[in-house]
Amino acid sequence: MSKRVKEILSWYSSDCPGTLSSLARLLNHGRLGGSGKMVILPVDQGFEHGPARSFAKNPVGYDPRSHFELAIGAGCNAYAAPLGFLEAGAAEFAGDIPLILKLNNSDSLYGGSDPCSAITGSVDDALRLGCAAIGFTIYPGSSQRNEMYEQIRELGEEAKRAGLAVVVWSYPRGSGISKDGETAVDVVAYAAQIAAQLGAHVIKVKPPTDHIEQDAARKVYESEGIPVATLADRVRHVVQSAFAGRRIVIFSGGPAQGHDGLISEIRGIAEGGGFGSIVGRNSFQRPKGEAIDLLHEIMDIHRNA
Amino acid sequence: MSKRVKEILSWYSSDCPGTLSSLARLLNHGRLGGSGKMVILPVDQGFEHGPARSFAKNPVGYDPRSHFELAIGAGCNAYAAPLGFLEAGAAEFAGDIPLILKLNNSDSLYGGSDPCSAITGSVDDALRLGCAAIGFTIYPGSSQRNEMYEQIRELGEEAKRAGLAVVVWSYPRGSGISKDGETAVDVVAYAAQIAAQLGAHVIKVKPPTDHIEQDAARKVYESEGIPVATLADRVRHVVQSAFAGRRIVIFSGGPAQGHDGLISEIRGIAEGGGFGSIVGRNSFQRPKGEAIDLLHEIMDIHRNA
Amino acid sequence: MSKRVKEILSWYSSDCPGTLSSLARLLNHGRLGGSGKMVILPVDQGFEHGPARSFAKNPVGYDPRSHFELAIGAGCNAYAAPLGFLEAGAAEFAGDIPLILKLNNSDSLYGGSDPCSAITGSVDDALRLGCAAIGFTIYPGSSQRNEMYEQIRELGEEAKRAGLAVVVWSYPRGSGISKDGETAVDVVAYAAQIAAQLGAHVIKVKPPTDHIEQDAARKVYESEGIPVATLADRVRHVVQSAFAGRRIVIFSGGPAQGHDGLISEIRGIAEGGGFGSIVGRNSFQRPKGEAIDLLHEIMDIHRNA
Amino acid sequence: MSKRVKEILSWYSSDCPGTLSSLARLLNHGRLGGSGKMVILPVDQGFEHGPARSFAKNPVGYDPRSHFELAIGAGCNAYAAPLGFLEAGAAEFAGDIPLILKLNNSDSLYGGSDPCSAITGSVDDALRLGCAAIGFTIYPGSSQRNEMYEQIRELGEEAKRAGLAVVVWSYPRGSGISKDGETAVDVVAYAAQIAAQLGAHVIKVKPPTDHIEQDAARKVYESEGIPVATLADRVRHVVQSAFAGRRIVIFSGGPAQGHDGLISEIRGIAEGGGFGSIVGRNSFQRPKGEAIDLLHEIMDIHRNA
Amino acid sequence: MSKRVKEILSWYSSDCPGTLSSLARLLNHGRLGGSGKMVILPVDQGFEHGPARSFAKNPVGYDPRSHFELAIGAGCNAYAAPLGFLEAGAAEFAGDIPLILKLNNSDSLYGGSDPCSAITGSVDDALRLGCAAIGFTIYPGSSQRNEMYEQIRELGEEAKRAGLAVVVWSYPRGSGISKDGETAVDVVAYAAQIAAQLGAHVIKVKPPTDHIEQDAARKVYESEGIPVATLADRVRHVVQSAFAGRRIVIFSGGPAQGHDGLISEIRGIAEGGGFGSIVGRNSFQRPKGEAIDLLHEIMDIHRNA
Repeated sequence: MSKRVKEILSWYSSDCPGTLSSLARLLNHGRLGGSGKMVILPVDQGFEHGPARSFAKNPVGYDPRSHFELAIGAGCNAYAAPLGFLEAGAAEFAGDIPLILKLNNSDSLYGGSDPCSAITGSVDDALRLGCAAIGFTIYPGSSQRNEMYEQIRELGEEAKRAGLAVVVWSYPRGSGISKDGETAVDVVAYAAQIAAQLGAHVIKVKPPTDHIEQDAARKVYESEGIPVATLADRVRHVVQSAFAGRRIVIFSGGPAQGHDGLISEIRGIAEGGGFGSIVGRNSFQRPKGEAIDLLHEIMDIHRNA
Repeated sequence: MSKRVKEILSWYSSDCPGTLSSLARLLNHGRLGGSGKMVILPVDQGFEHGPARSFAKNPVGYDPRSHFELAIGAGCNAYAAPLGFLEAGAAEFAGDIPLILKLNNSDSLYGGSDPCSAITGSVDDALRLGCAAIGFTIYPGSSQRNEMYEQIRELGEEAKRAGLAVVVWSYPRGSGISKDGETAVDVVAYAAQIAAQLGAHVIKVKPPTDHIEQDAARKVYESEGIPVATLADRVRHVVQSAFAGRRIVIFSGGPAQGHDGLISEIRGIAEGGGFGSIVGRNSFQRPKGEAIDLLHEIMDIHRNA
Repeated sequence: MSKRVKEILSWYSSDCPGTLSSLARLLNHGRLGGSGKMVILPVDQGFEHGPARSFAKNPVGYDPRSHFELAIGAGCNAYAAPLGFLEAGAAEFAGDIPLILKLNNSDSLYGGSDPCSAITGSVDDALRLGCAAIGFTIYPGSSQRNEMYEQIRELGEEAKRAGLAVVVWSYPRGSGISKDGETAVDVVAYAAQIAAQLGAHVIKVKPPTDHIEQDAARKVYESEGIPVATLADRVRHVVQSAFAGRRIVIFSGGPAQGHDGLISEIRGIAEGGGFGSIVGRNSFQRPKGEAIDLLHEIMDIHRNA
Repeated sequence: MSKRVKEILSWYSSDCPGTLSSLARLLNHGRLGGSGKMVILPVDQGFEHGPARSFAKNPVGYDPRSHFELAIGAGCNAYAAPLGFLEAGAAEFAGDIPLILKLNNSDSLYGGSDPCSAITGSVDDALRLGCAAIGFTIYPGSSQRNEMYEQIRELGEEAKRAGLAVVVWSYPRGSGISKDGETAVDVVAYAAQIAAQLGAHVIKVKPPTDHIEQDAARKVYESEGIPVATLADRVRHVVQSAFAGRRIVIFSGGPAQGHDGLISEIRGIAEGGGFGSIVGRNSFQRPKGEAIDLLHEIMDIHRNA
Repeated sequence: MSKRVKEILSWYSSDCPGTLSSLARLLNHGRLGGSGKMVILPVDQGFEHGPARSFAKNPVGYDPRSHFELAIGAGCNAYAAPLGFLEAGAAEFAGDIPLILKLNNSDSLYGGSDPCSAITGSVDDALRLGCAAIGFTIYPGSSQRNEMYEQIRELGEEAKRAGLAVVVWSYPRGSGISKDGETAVDVVAYAAQIAAQLGAHVIKVKPPTDHIEQDAARKVYESEGIPVATLADRVRHVVQSAFAGRRIVIFSGGPAQGHDGLISEIRGIAEGGGFGSIVGRNSFQRPKGEAIDLLHEIMDIHRNA
């Protein structure tokens, strides 16, 4: 195993060997295997946004096998999805790529200002499907945040006992913060900290903007001169906020966007010391060959950072 | 076993042989046995709408045995009902037809804009009654949707471990969507996707209209040119939305209607690649002979599609 | 055993012999034994309405033994009461009369528009007290109905496994319906159907009035010409609504009333095919001799119907 | 369903509908489906006698799929085997034939005069593999018989609650009886009675000889003039000993033998009212075509009896 | 994944994707990864034979880390050991090599002719240590065989549900067979069959000699002309005895022996179609460099077979 992966595993020394081994499976697989960087394919948009919004642009994506094939073909570190999508391919692609079972999901047929996902999978499901990790979304800023924190606490404890890793999607959202606040640098950094404090091994956040949401925070950013001008600055701050970089923090690709915008963003993340990217719509909504090329380009940026 | 049934079973390769065998029992029984198509008789209206509204038109329907007899006589693939109705005939008709125990039901004496069914049966009940599957209703769009998603997650996991199949009635309803939205094509497709992601083997939805409920979805339907003009178009889209047709999607007959309207609807469903129909009031509210003729007509349309 | 009792038991063929035997104990005991009719003495009013309202009129009723003695003396089929009342006599009168343990009860010190009873006894209690059945109250129309349905589902499954019968008091009440609606013929018929679908062996409802509560139902009563003019008509409809008469439906005596009014009501119930009566306040609030005479009169009406 | 199968199911009226349905699956499948007769393919000899003794004669039998194919190809009512053999084909052949999981097995590497099989499968295994029944061997006559009786009691109770049928191999053996006694008519009849009393739905015994093992029994056979001269006589007596023929009793084919001897034996079994045969080595040790011809010949004898 | 590994996984289609994935981890790791062949390092001799007998010859072996290092350095498919040895390195070497936790072990301080190992680890231990499989030893031929069969039945069911693979060491031993019988070809083939019927995914046996232990078996070997003259012949027969080669059968290296003898034995195993070797004392009792050379030589023979 590479020195870097060994170093990363050393940050999780309270975890059992099974969980370390699962983290190693994530870190050692695919084109970035051994580099300490990660690019993950997540496909929960069918549940979260509905099938047409997710798959109509590249209709092969309606077929659950296509996402396994894309993740494997591109050499991603892992493929993350809800129960149904994993059940639809886990046997056929057994052993081909580390899997992350998203244990909670939220649809958008019911709105509401304070979101809370439903639990849609179990640790036992993750084991029988051969997953390396569970995934879980929290919405800091929602009035229902505590319910989610308590759910991941319980599921995380169970997962760690079974030798799985814990990946937390930490997405500030809800009546506690403004729309701009969802990606404000202070909020994203805070979200990373919360996920880390909840015991996450891998933390997924959105790329932060230079907006600062909370007055109490702004004072400190100003008085201490925390640099937040460039994306690299902000990513560096977010990574620092996740235990001085001793937790794996990866960044979402966000809504589908043009190639150049995305690549520029990835460069900022890589330059700021982000551990990698988790790229859904920007990959699976493109034709497979194009998607693989893009994922390879992203991987190369991370590897060479 | 027919090649088509073998093909369908191959979509569920993460399931245990017991569940595959239960799916095979559903697919191989009755007049459509082996065709890969299904016509199921569901009778939960006594619970859902009350006895007079359900059975007064054809009073033999008050007698639970009549529905077993209709389903058997017509050669349906299965008969689905709540606990009481199944208990009232499961011994007498043991082995005559695959049974589906509806595990949750909702009455209409208490209204409310955000429905949630009560759990009225268990996996153990399904086993002792000799069922091939459990049935469960979710109401995407209700503020209580998450509670239902979490219930089916737990019941589904238990059912799959015991070798049963899981049939989900996915009926959008509640304060999150409009009345027209309940059968809007985007919403029905989304409902099918949610059921599939929750791990359903068989998904029941309503025939979709050409209404589009969500603005975010409408943009995609327009930009991608998803055809939704005819019922066949819309059914095709809904089936595609359930894992590119790799989950069994069947369509309800809806409220009682005239013969020609119903048959025309069935033709659209069949033409669009629907896997079959689940026809309650339109069958059991007719005299038995007439109901059987109608069910046979429906079966023939599905078989010849 | 009488042919009629055998016929009634045949309706419950999915149940284990223990439950059939418990039903037989109820059907074969007392003055109506073997007739297929039942008169049961229920005394839960102390809990439901308070002691003075229940027992001051005939103070011997404060003493739990008095109700055992009344039920035995009158030759009732069974005596039904909450935990405390049964514990206070079950040993002394062991073997003298079939007992039904009411597993939930509600007091009237706390009001609220949407009632839900508390679980106050267990299946294990019923077994150790030698009961033939458990009793359980549901309030269709209450916002808390689902909680009650789920409780009886679980308790019913446990009771059936232990060879007990299940008696459900189905009393529509709550914010979903009007005061008049509580005894409306459509609502009472619906309440009987719900109890039957929940797996009840014996269903207790109130005598229905000719009020029709739900608009959707009224259309059907009118279009199908369902007769609801006389009490006998309405009882016939309610019994039909409980699986075409294949579930035992008995009717409460309601609030204390004069002899003639009560007897006239019983005649209507008997004429309409009701399986019997469950008479509380109208019996135990009378002096014992008078109460026995009244119960005998009621029994004779049912026997001769 | 045929009248005869309905009649047979009526003998098991204390069982839940699930178990009746599983019995119906056994009785309704294959070439004898509906006749009330059964021919089952059992393959536990690999475990019981070792692979070479079992499969060398027709080496395709080393492959677990071959036995599924033989049972399906011949139209047997069911295929019975230990865990490993069922796991090796249950998914591939899901839904093709009812399965019976042998829950205990004994190898012959350790001898000893008082045999006891090891428990090698569970009711949960039977459910996940989609079986219709569990199978269990008891050795009346062994000093360890009580251990086996207690095991099947517990497993049988669990199986019946889960809606499975219970098949008992009742093979007298051990220090309590002589070698000749193992097939003595009094002992085989006694073994059938023990299995029936232990709650078996289907009982497998060996064809009885005219030897009488127990002195106390011999006196009765002589004084009452029980006919035991022909195999048909003895089979009739054994069937009568299993609750006057109200339990399904089937007979093993015994060690591999020539065609004529076997067929003559089957004729005696059929003439005596045996419910069918369970033919292992005599079928799978023959080439497939020949085995199917033989099984068809056996089925025809049973059907026409 | 290689076509061969896919083919091997297809033999285990009743298993959940997690177990398939664990089997894939074993088959895809190390120098033989993807070839369908396996060389495993097992070190349970410290427990089984005592430390001096096991480690004095090459004292680095007293240190548990040395065995991890040897297995990793040589590119073995997996490392198998009891609880203590795995706990002593699982964290340090997490992710470096698939682990197999030996769940039972037997010391040699207590003799006795009928061995039975103690259960010394759990499925939960295997999960927390990050293992891909559990290992378990059975001693067919021992009077205590049934106890071991029942233990692995239960542990195997639990392991399979948790997505682990099951490796069974099947070592005939005990008063039922002679010393020579322990490696007799008929007995080893039988031992492989028993392990397969008990549900093992991977079976470890000893290289068989041409001795035939059981008279009943000898007749068949002679009459059917089963070739047993060469080791390759015998290995071919043993592999066939494990479900016609549809279970992975690997062979132990046996007691420490000279290089040439061992290599010659490996050639016979490879030629006969063995799936690989499990080499303990012959590797770890040699200096590391020499051991790695030897293991590579063994791997090359298997790969090129």
